[in-house]
Amino acid sequence: MASEVAEHNYQLNVKMTCGGCSGAVTRVLTKAQQEGVVSSFDVNLETQLVNVRGPIEEAALVEKIRKTGKQIISVTSQDKAEAVV
Amino acid sequence: MASEVAEHNYQLNVKMTCGGCSGAVTRVLTKAQQEGVVSSFDVNLETQLVNVRGPIEEAALVEKIRKTGKQIISVTSQDKAEAVV
Repeated sequence: MASEVAEHNYQLNVKMTCGGCSGAVTRVLTKAQQEGVVSSFDVNLETQLVNVRGPIEEAALVEKIRKTGKQIISVTSQDKAEAVV
Repeated sequence: MASEVAEHNYQLNVKMTCGGCSGAVTRVLTKAQQEGVVSSFDVNLETQLVNVRGPIEEAALVEKIRKTGKQIISVTSQDKAEAVV
């Protein structure tokens, strides 16, 4: 269960105006999760916030979200080095 | 102005539920237009129809739309060979 891969934590403010918008972002992140680059995420239509956790690099994540055509208002990353031994 | 490149015509039925949804598809197709693979398009939220014209191959177009996270209900292509000499 121990992992050497750094887990990143990102919070993106993404312009989403309906359940179709947040559903689109959810589908893209679900696919990223299946690919193993995202370990967990949540998409909140009400707050317009998308939290993502996983080994994915910020630029790659931003590119994935950008390809949804949704506007990214801001991205913040709170990196935590995890020491799971 | 003469072009040897075949122009394809596609009509996609894409699930879009608000202006944010159709805006996302519009942004992706605008980018494809800037890249030169799409010559013209229109996105209709009311009918859920997206018409695309350009040299882009069907698989590449479907992949681009799929990356928006929007659900594609159907794709039809009406290819016209253009003889502009």
